[in-house]
Amino acid sequence: MSEAPSPVSVRVELGARSYDILIGPGLLQDAGHHFAARLPGARALVVSDRTVAALHADRLLASLARAGVAATLLTLPPGETTKSFDHLMTVVDRILAERLERGDAVVALGGGVIGDLSGFAAGIARRGMRFVQVPTSLLAQVDSSVGGKTGINSPRGKNLVGVFHQPALVLADTDVLDTLPEREFRAGYAEVVKYGLIDRPDFFEWLEANRAAIFAGGPARVEAVAASCRAKAAVVAGDEREDGDRALLNLGHTFGHALESVARYDPARLVHGEGVSVGMALAHRFSRRLGLCPGQDAVRAEAHLRAAGLPTRIQEIPGEGFTLEALMDRIAQDKKVTRGSLTFILTHGLGRSFVARDVAPEALGAFLAEELAG
Amino acid sequence: MSEAPSPVSVRVELGARSYDILIGPGLLQDAGHHFAARLPGARALVVSDRTVAALHADRLLASLARAGVAATLLTLPPGETTKSFDHLMTVVDRILAERLERGDAVVALGGGVIGDLSGFAAGIARRGMRFVQVPTSLLAQVDSSVGGKTGINSPRGKNLVGVFHQPALVLADTDVLDTLPEREFRAGYAEVVKYGLIDRPDFFEWLEANRAAIFAGGPARVEAVAASCRAKAAVVAGDEREDGDRALLNLGHTFGHALESVARYDPARLVHGEGVSVGMALAHRFSRRLGLCPGQDAVRAEAHLRAAGLPTRIQEIPGEGFTLEALMDRIAQDKKVTRGSLTFILTHGLGRSFVARDVAPEALGAFLAEELAG
Repeated sequence: MSEAPSPVSVRVELGARSYDILIGPGLLQDAGHHFAARLPGARALVVSDRTVAALHADRLLASLARAGVAATLLTLPPGETTKSFDHLMTVVDRILAERLERGDAVVALGGGVIGDLSGFAAGIARRGMRFVQVPTSLLAQVDSSVGGKTGINSPRGKNLVGVFHQPALVLADTDVLDTLPEREFRAGYAEVVKYGLIDRPDFFEWLEANRAAIFAGGPARVEAVAASCRAKAAVVAGDEREDGDRALLNLGHTFGHALESVARYDPARLVHGEGVSVGMALAHRFSRRLGLCPGQDAVRAEAHLRAAGLPTRIQEIPGEGFTLEALMDRIAQDKKVTRGSLTFILTHGLGRSFVARDVAPEALGAFLAEELAG
Repeated sequence: MSEAPSPVSVRVELGARSYDILIGPGLLQDAGHHFAARLPGARALVVSDRTVAALHADRLLASLARAGVAATLLTLPPGETTKSFDHLMTVVDRILAERLERGDAVVALGGGVIGDLSGFAAGIARRGMRFVQVPTSLLAQVDSSVGGKTGINSPRGKNLVGVFHQPALVLADTDVLDTLPEREFRAGYAEVVKYGLIDRPDFFEWLEANRAAIFAGGPARVEAVAASCRAKAAVVAGDEREDGDRALLNLGHTFGHALESVARYDPARLVHGEGVSVGMALAHRFSRRLGLCPGQDAVRAEAHLRAAGLPTRIQEIPGEGFTLEALMDRIAQDKKVTRGSLTFILTHGLGRSFVARDVAPEALGAFLAEELAG
């Protein structure tokens, strides 16, 4: 039955909640086989958005059917607004209407929006059902598919409501990424670069040498996804619920979230990965300004992001609103604030990031004022 | 500051999620002290219903204020319909509006409805905040305050949506129970009896000797609550997520849920504890009929429930609808069904319950037909 080459397997070690991420070209063909082998007897509700479903749902459902897995499909509108209480209720209600049991699985076929929403629904229906991710964006394959974070947005902010709910299996088909718009692939690549910049200088160097091959597809892309998943899995295994070192994964994200918020999460202006790219560049320049990071390392990080076609300066983001006040306000509101103290991920150089727990707001303000002055 | 006697402390052992249940008369007076000692620096959102808030909220808020805990109050309508998606959103939104952080606490002041709803909100706001229970019903003190089950109802059934979210602290003031209607106290007592019937024959005997004293209040009541919490804590510690032995806690509940469902969850007809009482009596008689349980044990279990003023037969429930078809349909729908097989808690005698995983539907049908024939 299986015609694709054997996938690369990355294990996320979380005790009783451990799971495998399978990564490879053409994996969607064999999804049913892998599902049935690991969740014998389970039924499936596949959740997708209309755009992704039109491209990939038939293949996934056919593969599940070949493996004898009873499955139905629920399609939702594409876009960030789908991460709402209303759509959460829709998914939960469908799970209950199908009389799925705890041992059955919700299968998320899509990017981060579908994964976050479906994982949350799986986490609360019957107080927790099984969950399988089939991420179809690079961002989802290297980031949201690892770590069990699920959630929706609230009118008061993004991802403010959710649970930690680990999947039972992740199937990342790297061929599927060929259907992504170039801009979305680039945005996901920002998160790949992030793993190098956090604590893997060798991986960063490898990315410098292999960027074009990764964008083209083939074995370099599989390796980039696998290395990213391994990097995130190592962090998550040490800190499942984000109480400590997992904060390193937020490199570039405090700045990035503030930028996304000021841009009103308008994807025409800024998508998440682009915000992270600018945010990582800012984190490196801020670290250099504080005398923590050699100038040449900050330059090299920024150069690689630019070579990938990613923005690295606030001025590159179209539209208005990027004032010092707006940015400082957003940073103070960031949900990763702990008891009022500002936590930032800074760096001592390429691949030498660390958690700085008491960044002085004055220093941050002075730095951002300079950046905005351009 | 503290004037009440030292409370009894019951530890729920769940590794990093372990917590204490403090039990004693007048404990509400000292709630702030205990809260601040265990959650230093945390702020609180107290969630209650209007009935309970009118009786007890002032005392709790004053105690928190004396201990220097910043707290605000959210009151919701009383009754089971409050366990809805809409009210869940209300609580979550208030948590976010107050800018409470993960280390702050949602405090549930009320019975099972408020505890289940607030615990669920605490479990999903910011992907999990701290949670403190101040149970004000006997049922909540001996059952829902132990084990971390939270949730709401769906139009498709009760408690079908929720999470496991352990509290950081439980404060059970046994004096508060004096304000309960007699019928509600009795209904809670059914769950106390349950712990004896599951696997504590000595406790069951002690209840036979001390029932009147427990209803009157005083040390026997504290001991009954503490022993119940210890019993549930022991089961929960062995099976946090209800994959195995925790099922024993459902003694009387498969029948009970079916009866509640047929009675349309109308509290004028049947409240949960009464359903459990009839359900436990049915489980004992069914076990006797299957030749598993000595007749005298079934009689003694039933006699104690009746002595406490609790119903033990389906015919005692007012109203129509208790047909064999309706009951069998509800039992088949019970959310504790695993992959289609009927799981029942049966018993070999007083305090000798066990999980029966393949009860023949025919035997069950024949037994219920006889019961309904009277």
